[in-house]
Amino acid sequence: MARPGGEREIIARIRQAVGSSGDLLIGIGDDCAVYKTGPDRVSLVTTDTMVEGVHFDLAWHPPLELGRKAASVNISDIAAMGGLPRFALLSLALTPAFGSQWLDAFMAGFLAVLAEHGAVLIGGDTVQSGHESVLSVTVLGEMAEAELITRKGARVGDVVLVSGFLGEAAAGLALCRLGRAHDSGWQTLVAAHLNPVPQVALGRALATSGLVHAMQDLSDGLATDLAHICTESGVGALVTAEKIPLSPVLGKAAKICGQSAMDWALSGGEDYQLLFTVGEQQVAVLSSLIREQTGRELFAVGCIIEGPGVFLEEAGQRREISYRGYEHFR
Amino acid sequence: MARPGGEREIIARIRQAVGSSGDLLIGIGDDCAVYKTGPDRVSLVTTDTMVEGVHFDLAWHPPLELGRKAASVNISDIAAMGGLPRFALLSLALTPAFGSQWLDAFMAGFLAVLAEHGAVLIGGDTVQSGHESVLSVTVLGEMAEAELITRKGARVGDVVLVSGFLGEAAAGLALCRLGRAHDSGWQTLVAAHLNPVPQVALGRALATSGLVHAMQDLSDGLATDLAHICTESGVGALVTAEKIPLSPVLGKAAKICGQSAMDWALSGGEDYQLLFTVGEQQVAVLSSLIREQTGRELFAVGCIIEGPGVFLEEAGQRREISYRGYEHFR
Repeated sequence: MARPGGEREIIARIRQAVGSSGDLLIGIGDDCAVYKTGPDRVSLVTTDTMVEGVHFDLAWHPPLELGRKAASVNISDIAAMGGLPRFALLSLALTPAFGSQWLDAFMAGFLAVLAEHGAVLIGGDTVQSGHESVLSVTVLGEMAEAELITRKGARVGDVVLVSGFLGEAAAGLALCRLGRAHDSGWQTLVAAHLNPVPQVALGRALATSGLVHAMQDLSDGLATDLAHICTESGVGALVTAEKIPLSPVLGKAAKICGQSAMDWALSGGEDYQLLFTVGEQQVAVLSSLIREQTGRELFAVGCIIEGPGVFLEEAGQRREISYRGYEHFR
Repeated sequence: MARPGGEREIIARIRQAVGSSGDLLIGIGDDCAVYKTGPDRVSLVTTDTMVEGVHFDLAWHPPLELGRKAASVNISDIAAMGGLPRFALLSLALTPAFGSQWLDAFMAGFLAVLAEHGAVLIGGDTVQSGHESVLSVTVLGEMAEAELITRKGARVGDVVLVSGFLGEAAAGLALCRLGRAHDSGWQTLVAAHLNPVPQVALGRALATSGLVHAMQDLSDGLATDLAHICTESGVGALVTAEKIPLSPVLGKAAKICGQSAMDWALSGGEDYQLLFTVGEQQVAVLSSLIREQTGRELFAVGCIIEGPGVFLEEAGQRREISYRGYEHFR
């Protein structure tokens, strides 16, 4: 999130300057960094920072849900490569306004999500800040090296799939901003924003299937996240608007908020569903395998084409949408 | 740093709530968390957060030195257990005031320190903040499990040693605040504040000696850091004021700043020297071993006694000084 344009520039600059190391398999530029810890074991590590007023608003984000979200968005990065989360570190820079009651609720939420996924808090830092609170979380995970799924493997002809409804979190945020979060009917959307669910079990099932070519989590919206996969894989992608899974309630919320459900789905971000590509011949096999193992449906939304660029086909028109993430809303 | 009283309360509360894991050797409460990665290998991980206006002041902290310091204070936590730093993650929450020139200098400093210690930047996050910038760094290290030195092993009768002059960083900060940083004669003190040096080689030499019972780095000042070792080891300590190594220039700076050199040494923090305990019979052996291997002198400043409490003996008077850290200056 935050500022993909600026962030991409910064990351590109930094990537050129860093060194390398023999046991480092993946450095900057994927959901996690990955390094070898044994003959067929790798460790995964990811970090995410959330700033008050930029990434969360205490006016509507209860501390328990914020604690859950701070853990979940990092665990989602582990899930995005097919890994299992193991350990977490939490750095809190809190303004003096935060009392122990707030902190207890935040920690209860944070630790609950770790426990749900078998992970443990092993360290962190608590410091004082002046004007805004900043939460930094690092999560370590592990998996077999052979099962690792990166952003790099997408091939021309692959089908692009997502693991659930898109745009829900953006709709929930819009409803919170409008003060309509507590209206009946919006619970699913508001929960998607306040308390997203990392797709660990699904990520593991996709990784062990051996059928997935490239994967990442949907944190910045389909347009930006698919562009990441395309850039890293040296390909392009074509998304069909009609195939993007939108829940019926999303359209109603869009009307109330005066916004577009399709924009939310493409550019809203924070859905934390998984985005991945699979050879066309394997889609049916994978879908039934995943249905059997996890009870989940997969949604094909497009295909991988010669690069570069991510394109959207909507009502017979084709337009480029690469990297239309959070910045799109500004 | 920051607010040891508040931080200790928060950490105590959090320590009670976290779970455990079979391969986790040390969780919250030491310089690093430590977990097993092989039959005799452990990984170390630590995180530190620096807030603009609380932990650094851009009025006098040049970006290159700030980048160096952000890496060094985390690497120091790895050194404090005898480990070797391997990988780093960097999260930057920057206000819009930070341009690419500032960022390039910051990154040059950060990456230079990593390179000096054979470590590599493998990930991070860059986000926007509104009013103040927050830097969060995570460093991963590794070492043989048998060589690990924790805070827990101090024994009654041990000698307490430090690895260099104390109070220098606090003096440097005071001089910066007074606008006297560029006066001739203060370079060493100002550098100790702006650009502290993590004691990786010394930490490794102490760990491989097999003679050190407990260790940590001096980040909050001798009074607080020795209290950490005593609390974790279930012992007390007696420090002799006359034995604390103070450089001649420190006294001059104290006079100019109207402060006490001894207060700086006890409570100033940020010296990032190593603090450790050794059996009385081993001090001479260890000192000559370290002199030979690293060219460094060690300074005995006191001894471990029955607990609880850290006491200072000064001019025949004995007073308790436990946890007189940063808060002492408020």
